[in-house]
Amino acid sequence: MFDIKTELTTNPKEKPAPEELGFGHFFSDHMFILDYTDGVGWHDPRIVPYQPISLDPSAMIFHYGQSVFEGLKAYVTVDNDALLFRADQNFKRLNRSNERLCIPAIDEELALEGLKQLVTVDRDWIPNNPGTSLYIRPFIIATEPNLGVHPSKKYHFIIIMSPSGSYYKEGINPVKILVEEQFVRAVKGGTGEAKTGGNYASALKGQEIASREGYAQTLWLDGKENKYIEEVGSMNIFFKINGIVITPALNGSILPGITRDSMIQVLKFKGIPVEERQISIDEVVEAHQNGTLEEVFGTGTAAVISPVGELKYLDDKMSINKGEIGEISQMLYDTLTGLQYGSIDDTFGWTIRL
Amino acid sequence: MFDIKTELTTNPKEKPAPEELGFGHFFSDHMFILDYTDGVGWHDPRIVPYQPISLDPSAMIFHYGQSVFEGLKAYVTVDNDALLFRADQNFKRLNRSNERLCIPAIDEELALEGLKQLVTVDRDWIPNNPGTSLYIRPFIIATEPNLGVHPSKKYHFIIIMSPSGSYYKEGINPVKILVEEQFVRAVKGGTGEAKTGGNYASALKGQEIASREGYAQTLWLDGKENKYIEEVGSMNIFFKINGIVITPALNGSILPGITRDSMIQVLKFKGIPVEERQISIDEVVEAHQNGTLEEVFGTGTAAVISPVGELKYLDDKMSINKGEIGEISQMLYDTLTGLQYGSIDDTFGWTIRL
Ligand SMILES: Cc1ncc(COP(=O)(O)O)c(C=O)c1O
Ligand SMILES: Cc1ncc(COP(=O)(O)O)c(C=O)c1O
Repeated sequence: MFDIKTELTTNPKEKPAPEELGFGHFFSDHMFILDYTDGVGWHDPRIVPYQPISLDPSAMIFHYGQSVFEGLKAYVTVDNDALLFRADQNFKRLNRSNERLCIPAIDEELALEGLKQLVTVDRDWIPNNPGTSLYIRPFIIATEPNLGVHPSKKYHFIIIMSPSGSYYKEGINPVKILVEEQFVRAVKGGTGEAKTGGNYASALKGQEIASREGYAQTLWLDGKENKYIEEVGSMNIFFKINGIVITPALNGSILPGITRDSMIQVLKFKGIPVEERQISIDEVVEAHQNGTLEEVFGTGTAAVISPVGELKYLDDKMSINKGEIGEISQMLYDTLTGLQYGSIDDTFGWTIRL
Repeated sequence: MFDIKTELTTNPKEKPAPEELGFGHFFSDHMFILDYTDGVGWHDPRIVPYQPISLDPSAMIFHYGQSVFEGLKAYVTVDNDALLFRADQNFKRLNRSNERLCIPAIDEELALEGLKQLVTVDRDWIPNNPGTSLYIRPFIIATEPNLGVHPSKKYHFIIIMSPSGSYYKEGINPVKILVEEQFVRAVKGGTGEAKTGGNYASALKGQEIASREGYAQTLWLDGKENKYIEEVGSMNIFFKINGIVITPALNGSILPGITRDSMIQVLKFKGIPVEERQISIDEVVEAHQNGTLEEVFGTGTAAVISPVGELKYLDDKMSINKGEIGEISQMLYDTLTGLQYGSIDDTFGWTIRL
């Protein structure tokens, strides 16, 4: 068992109204912290009132970006339980990110236990309007006060939580996505498959260009040949071409999404053909031209299943499935949210009820 | 003129002894801060006692790595003046990094004025033993408390300063460098030419591998073909082959080093042939094999001119100039340090005496 000290707030915040939630603005009353010191290891797991972090201005996180993070959610089920979805996978992935960023591994069991206790303490912060959830952000930052470029000797591992509105305010609206051909998010041998700040900082520019043109997100191509499809800003991407669902294989430069993995398993379970392989933007353009590009959708914790209604590549605007949600996308959306909100029986063993 | 408020410390720190300085451990008594708020712009430039920064745990710098930085030095000249070297170029480059990272541009004049005043306030912190200097670290961090992935609406621009020992404790010792062939630092279209945290986080792994094998730093190859030479961890690289000095051209993925630019100008001024162009690791290996690889050296603010005594690529250990400093490296070192410590007349107009 783990000894996690808990200090409860004496000053609980007022909870925001469901309609003003949005994403990532509000934070619950408590947070989980675990510290690392070279020679001591990870120590002092504790739940404390949500509060500012005070760091020396030379703390490495401010200079050399040594950081990793995760994103998952807690849901209120139809039976009024609190539910976590595949949270163990998030801490596994966090440790793989740690490995790439030269951050010492955390104890995944301890992290999961800390998370469960934190969600229990702030149980009332999980909103329960349809589509809402408590977004959970575990993250690790390098805190050693030192300007040398080397792995930090000190870290904070922190979990904060943010009640979040539905991604889809008025039903599922297919999004418009711009294929970026100039800027690159990641390359083989880089940090693309790790969930680390630098990947997101690097992606802001493409995002800015997409927004300016009226597109919701960027679809990234590979960094070597600017040709193969990688992923979208915060989701993995799937194409249904001629009855077969295709998603880029995990090649070292894209994030191994947990929703991606789950949806591949669901597709296989349902007997729908699914392939993880290299897929070029040219193949997608060609499929669109010959009428076999049937559906495109993204998968991610925040975006759930997000149908894509338009893809723009160079001067080519490709409308997909008349801008409407496709059959497979709808099925996956219903299955995923059914599992997450507890209205479908979890035969996969993915959910953790608290 | 700029109105920069100054609050002096009432509790000055003891200065470290010259022999314990090292790099980036100690910090002077004051720091410069400038804040950015969306709708207001950059505001409130001030010099305050060196102190911790307190941020919400959701501050964007902790999650999405939106940050840029610079590195330069103040020197004490032979006439006991404080001297800055091409500081205007650092703020120019900071703004180019800002552009890539979607951070609002700073007023370069204000930044330079803030720096001058800060160095003047902490004048006694510039060490004056041979080879020592006051390392200066301007940096910008995204501070908006929000988990949405978008450019922050709030930033801190901060300058801190660290008295630093000589890079070369016992005369100039050529370093051993490992050519990395698996991991990649940056790729065209990415953030390689910006000075942003993510590039350094990404490079830690290669650095770790190099250290383990007894090498001081990593030489990075390009991300597309793993073939062309880019730069070293914290310096640009030069090769003298058959009488000609060659350095990789600025191609979008390497940092446009200010020392690099200065040394190219010095070489041209002295009539020594110098080329900025693509150069592959194969060309270097071949030059080594046929005996025309005469010198290799790195250039950087911290490393000054750093001769390379050995390059290892795959299983090939190339010893360069018998592991000794070459003629050109020595000349550049003498010229650069002569300008920086004021023993050589500055005909380039690069130095700012305070
Ligand atoms: C770059 C990127 N790709 C994909 C995903 C989807 O991953 P997951 O399904 O684990 O949320 C995310 C979001 O977390 C992401 O940030
Ligand atoms: C990656 C990298 N390349 C090159 C340099 C050298 O640049 P400069 O000469 O401006 O210090 C540095 C150090 O600042 C660096 O971090």
